[in-house]
Order: sequence, then C-alpha cells, then structure tokens
Amino acid sequence: MASESKTSEEIARERLIDLAAEFYDQFDRGEIPEMKLPTRTKSNIEYDEDSHVWVYGDRTSTRSANSVRGARKLLKATYTIEFLARQLDEDRSSTLRELYYLSESWDAEEAHFSDQDESNQLVEDLEIVSNVTREDLHMRPEESGATLMGPLKIREQTRRGEREIHCQGDVGEGGYQIPNNPDTIDFLEHDIDFVMCVETGGMRDRLIENGFDEDYNALIVHLKGQPARATRRITKRLHDELDLPVVVFTDGDPWSYRIFGSVAYGSIKSAHLSEYLATPEARFVGIQPQDIVDYDLPTDPLADSDINALQSELEDPRFMTDYWEEQIELQLDIGKKAEQQALAARGLDFVTDEYLPTRLDEMGII
Amino acid sequence: MASESKTSEEIARERLIDLAAEFYDQFDRGEIPEMKLPTRTKSNIEYDEDSHVWVYGDRTSTRSANSVRGARKLLKATYTIEFLARQLDEDRSSTLRELYYLSESWDAEEAHFSDQDESNQLVEDLEIVSNVTREDLHMRPEESGATLMGPLKIREQTRRGEREIHCQGDVGEGGYQIPNNPDTIDFLEHDIDFVMCVETGGMRDRLIENGFDEDYNALIVHLKGQPARATRRITKRLHDELDLPVVVFTDGDPWSYRIFGSVAYGSIKSAHLSEYLATPEARFVGIQPQDIVDYDLPTDPLADSDINALQSELEDPRFMTDYWEEQIELQLDIGKKAEQQALAARGLDFVTDEYLPTRLDEMGII
Repeated sequence: MASESKTSEEIARERLIDLAAEFYDQFDRGEIPEMKLPTRTKSNIEYDEDSHVWVYGDRTSTRSANSVRGARKLLKATYTIEFLARQLDEDRSSTLRELYYLSESWDAEEAHFSDQDESNQLVEDLEIVSNVTREDLHMRPEESGATLMGPLKIREQTRRGEREIHCQGDVGEGGYQIPNNPDTIDFLEHDIDFVMCVETGGMRDRLIENGFDEDYNALIVHLKGQPARATRRITKRLHDELDLPVVVFTDGDPWSYRIFGSVAYGSIKSAHLSEYLATPEARFVGIQPQDIVDYDLPTDPLADSDINALQSELEDPRFMTDYWEEQIELQLDIGKKAEQQALAARGLDFVTDEYLPTRLDEMGII
Repeated sequence: MASESKTSEEIARERLIDLAAEFYDQFDRGEIPEMKLPTRTKSNIEYDEDSHVWVYGDRTSTRSANSVRGARKLLKATYTIEFLARQLDEDRSSTLRELYYLSESWDAEEAHFSDQDESNQLVEDLEIVSNVTREDLHMRPEESGATLMGPLKIREQTRRGEREIHCQGDVGEGGYQIPNNPDTIDFLEHDIDFVMCVETGGMRDRLIENGFDEDYNALIVHLKGQPARATRRITKRLHDELDLPVVVFTDGDPWSYRIFGSVAYGSIKSAHLSEYLATPEARFVGIQPQDIVDYDLPTDPLADSDINALQSELEDPRFMTDYWEEQIELQLDIGKKAEQQALAARGLDFVTDEYLPTRLDEMGII
C-alpha cells in the first residue's frame, strides 16, 4: 500500500493536518468546534489483564469552543498543530520547553501558553488524539542520557548521515549514548543472550569492569533511576524485534520496584503509550527482600514513606502476584531495605560471580 | 628520570604505602601515630588572587591515635589504604558506595564505616594527604554522564584496549560519553576554535541540531547542570593542552552563575583539586541580566532564595569584578531571571544565528 512507504514524519504531519481539518469542517457545518479525548483521570485508567499494561477506559471528555476558556484551548491547539506540522516539514525538532517559550512569538496573544504545564499537557493531548508519539512529532525531552554496552551493532540515522556503531568495540567505557528518539536506530547484528537494565551508575560500571556483558553476552542498559522514555522504548524494541529476554536489576526498595514496574507495565502518566514503551515480559532480578535475609546484606531501616509505598504496591494490580505479595510482606516484616551496591559487602566480584549467575539460572535466563 | 616512567597507578600506590609506612615508623619510634592534614573548614579556604582558584590556608589539623575515636579513624584509614593499594595493584576500581559497603567484610569490626559520609570524607582526606586524586586512586563517582560533540578525535584507553573515536563522525546524536576518569583520553587531532560548555540538555540538543559545532568549529560539552568532576577535568585539559578558549553557556540565574563559578574557579568542597579541575580562564557567555532587558526575554520573578543567593555572590571573591557586580545589581533591580531556552521566544534559530555570534564576537572569541 502507498501509505506504507510514507515516512513517520509524513504520517505524523498528515494526522495533525487532519485534526485541524476537522475544526475547519466543524466551522463549515456551522457547528461549534470541539475535540474529544479519553478522560485522563486515574479513575479512567485500567490495568489490562490481557496485555498486562495500563490503558485508558471508555470515558471521554470534550474540549469545546462553547466557552472562552475552551475556545482559547482550541486556539492554542491549532497554533501548536501549525508549529508541529512546519517542524516536521522542515525535519527539525524542539523541546517542550522551547515550545512553551516559542508561543510568545505567536501573533495571537490569546494563544500564548500561560505556563509550561499547559503546553506539556497539550502535547500529550495531541499525542493521544492523533495517535502519534511525541518522538514522531519531533518533540525532544530535556534530558535523556542513558547508555548501552554489549554485543550489539546498530545503525543510527543522524541529521548528519548514518553512523554504524558497535556497542562494545566502537565506544569508550561510557558506552553508547541512546539518542532522544531511538526509532532512528536499526539493529544490524548482535550476539546478545539477554538484556539487563540496571538502575544505578555504580552498578552499571561494576558490571562493565567485571566484564559481565562479555562473559554472559548481556546487553547492559543503564536506567539512570526512573528511566527516560527513550530508554524504555529501546528496551521494548530489543525485546520485540530481537526476541530477547529482558531483566531489570534494581535496589531492593519500593521505589525501585516502581522503576521495574514502569519498564514492564508502563506508568499511569503514559498509559496512552503502553504499547509503545512497556515490556510486560520483563522480569525482576533486583535485590529481593529474601536476599536481604539470605545474604545478610547491609541495610537501612524502612522509612514511613517506604512503608506507605510498599502498602500501596500491595494494592497495585501490577504487583498482584504471589511473588510480589510474598516479597513485599516479607519486607514489611523485616522492616529493611538494601541497595544493589550493598552486594559489595561480600566483595566486589560477588555480584557477577555469584549473585547474578544464581538468580539468572533460577529464572532460566542462563 | 626513572620516576617519570611510572604509571599514575604506581605513583598513587607508592604514596599510599608511604602513608602506611609513616604510621609504622611512628609506632617504631614509640610515638603515638598521627596524620596531619589541612583544616577543612570554610575559614581555612582562601581565594588565591594570583591563580584565581580556591586553595587551603596554612592551618592544619592532626588526627592522632591518642583517643579511642582518633585511633579508630586511623584504623579505618589503614584498612582503606590496604584496599586501595590492592585495587591499584590489580588495576581495578570501585565506587565510594562500594567502599562503604565493602568495609563490612573487613575482619576488624572497629574498622567498619558507620555511614557513607565517613568513608567519603576519609577518601577526600587521603586525596589531600597523598596528593593523589580520587580518579588516580581508581574511585569512581556514582554517576557521570556528560557528553562531547565537536571536531575532536580522541583515543581512550579502556580496559578492553584502545578506542579511537571522532566526536562527530564516530558517534550518534547523543555524542561521546566522557568516561569517569578522562585522564584515560589522549587528544589526537582537532579542528576546534573554542570549547562551549552548555548547562541544559535542551540547549545542547538545539546547538547540535542547528549545526553550531560544525559552523563555528565548537566543541560542545554538556554540563548537565552542576558538572561532574570528569566534565570539569576534561574542560581544563582541553584548555591547557590544546590552548583553546573556554566559554560557559548557562541560564541567567544565581545557581547558573555558580555552575560557571565551579567550572572556572573550583568549589570550596574541592579546594584541594582546583589546579586539577578549575579553568580560571573560562568566560561566561550565559544569559546575562542585561540580555533580559535588551531582548525582552520571557522571565520568572526572583524567589527569595534567588535574591539571597545573588546577595551572597556579591560577597563571593569569585564574583568581585565590575562585570559581575553590575549584572548582579541589575538582576536584583529588575527582579527577574531567564532560562537559556527562553531565547526560543525569538525563534528556534535566534540562539545560533544571532545571540551567540554577537556575544562571542564581542568577547573576541570568533
């Protein structure tokens, strides 16, 4: 089909123009222009038991020009659509913050954004209504920054031409920097047995120094705490396109379980993107409360906020499995948490010589 | 001289052993072992008017084993020295957090660190007493993460051999990731006219998208907010070894002036490293209060904490120049601050077509 040969930029641009054309048609028919989108409150977000990710429910809200406030919102949407369509046409990109400031240059003063929350929200709305991701609208995040290291050769389409990079042989110890839009990457060749996402820089460096990526044919993805969209996207693509197991190695505390949850199941904030970002098959290889007991790891006591977070995880459909219930109950019981680097109490090689091989073997990954 | 052919690891190791030997000799002479180091309170840190960086004053403190508390500190120091010497001998490295946890495995329970502040502090003490940097002791930071993009070819000595990388042609849009210890890098070839350190990722990406590094032969260093030691170190090396001008492009607020200050003059916390990390010749090309007025940039009002920070900068010897006094007084007067991305209010190309060329021309950089 002809549409299959269109670039993602062309498709994104057409969908934006369709939105604007819809307003035009509404005017033309003598109707008050409006835009429908899923209600984005927590009560309209559901955990889909089949796909194991967050999705929107059936309720929709309507943005209508039948009030000054609503009309102003649609005006801002049309100006933003015009800006984005031109940006795609010129193959340029910009950040959410630039969009906010840029609105100051628009001739209709009513279209200027009053704060950045408003413009961020509008871009999310447009993502949902047009079914085009922010990346395909060429909106960049403020910071990305995660890296890959492992037996993978990629081709990145940059503005300055193609770059072929092997994520061990062609990079320094810092690894390969994931670009803001990882869909500019093609996977060329690989020798990866599994993908391991690692929460902290200290542990990522430990695994690289100990040669874990080489010894186990692991691709090490540094999450840098709560992972950026680009990091989650490339993880999903590695799983789906190369059919690779994904494991997530984090600290042993409720915040780190959420990091695992966002890689695996998506987040409430990006429920409209779960199919694009989430890897429900990802498995947890982080520090488990059971490890704290078994290995007598150095710990910190749970703070009140940790206890509350653990209790709300017990109510969270993403964690409603026997495994998680057992581990979370155990953690509440012992009242302790441990960091992944706490494994160093058994020596610097313990994590790569014993801990990970044992866990991964039990899970059938190696 | 023979000593010149020693590796930095060998020198670091010898200096550590010398420290331990000193304790031995003190015991041997029947003296109570002690360790002298500069007093590290704010009152003993001076701004050196000649070298334009922070340095320690003349006062010293003594850690002596004449109390249980003092003896325990020296015990921890000797265990740490042993660990570091072995680490260097085996050409390995570790993070500060790993050292803290690792102490749990030491046989003398009295040598275990009670919290990470204690082990961090001890490593800083050893840096100062041995005159060896943390990088040469092979202690890694938790996170590094800054990147380079520009006409520079480097050779990085990695654990897996040498890598030659051109910081435009051999990297993706994310750029070249600076390793934790940038002294593993040799500069091979370059076509750089000046080095530009940029505070935010959004602006870094803007400059790369607009081809600023290509058009002006600029090496773009992403600071990622308050820069890591590795980022400051490579900036200094680029200036000193390649004789390149360095400019720092930040937001226009007191916190960003401090970012400039830490690149240029060092920080109080790392006063013992100013000669290793600071680039006193670096110049400020960030948003100036005068720009807010001249270009009518979108602004936010100064918060009370901003006003306090500006007032304390007026008392800070690093900012006691006519230029800074004028700009800071102006900012207090107009009561506003602006981000670097606020330049987008004049269009996405304003920063590269007008703002930076004008500023850099006025400063004689281009």
